[in-house]
Amino acid sequence: MTAETTPQKGFRSRCSIARTLDILGDRWTLLIVRDLMWHGKHTFGALQDSEERVPTNILANRLKLLEAHGLLARIPYQSRPVRHRYELTEFGRSLEPVLLKLMEWGHERLGGGAFDPVTRTSWNADADATG
Amino acid sequence: MTAETTPQKGFRSRCSIARTLDILGDRWTLLIVRDLMWHGKHTFGALQDSEERVPTNILANRLKLLEAHGLLARIPYQSRPVRHRYELTEFGRSLEPVLLKLMEWGHERLGGGAFDPVTRTSWNADADATG
Repeated sequence: MTAETTPQKGFRSRCSIARTLDILGDRWTLLIVRDLMWHGKHTFGALQDSEERVPTNILANRLKLLEAHGLLARIPYQSRPVRHRYELTEFGRSLEPVLLKLMEWGHERLGGGAFDPVTRTSWNADADATG
Repeated sequence: MTAETTPQKGFRSRCSIARTLDILGDRWTLLIVRDLMWHGKHTFGALQDSEERVPTNILANRLKLLEAHGLLARIPYQSRPVRHRYELTEFGRSLEPVLLKLMEWGHERLGGGAFDPVTRTSWNADADATG
């Protein structure tokens, strides 16, 4: 995909880093992606139950934002009352290398835990800590 | 550095991604790091002059935050009046792979420009666009 074929609308600049941060540049969005990607959390309740305790209004807002950008699909799994499960799209799953790089830096430089998505094991973290 | 030797204070959780976002999770901080890292912008005025037009109060706040976390050094280069230049520390420079990964995703997936820090060339971007 080139800049020529992509709408410029809504992005601050042509800079790829600025565009990425236009969508993902906040304290919470990538943690929600983390939980969807690696930790089997696919309902609003499960996503709320992260170690970081995402506020309800922020979680609702970020799920809408991720869906609006095509990173997330909302799939009804029950009709009365309607309930949805949230799944990353292929586009959303393409963020895995970004998550891994942020994790690597936080592990090496900030003493945070590490999580291996292949073996599903964690180091230097509480048993239930998440990457 | 392991979790055991690092103060937990101030971090939301042991998750390395959450810790990284505690410091860098907003729309602006990594753009300031980008300009310091690659684009030779080392004064307040030069940093203000980014394509994204960072608001003055946010720039001042983020420079203080980067300095407080040891990512940035403020070096006086003139005494009357005192003026400072801003330089990334080695810790700050360790963010280069993180910037490159965010750029890669924004380039491949959002049609943003790319910048090669080795050759200092850009693709799919205006002549003065920045990575």
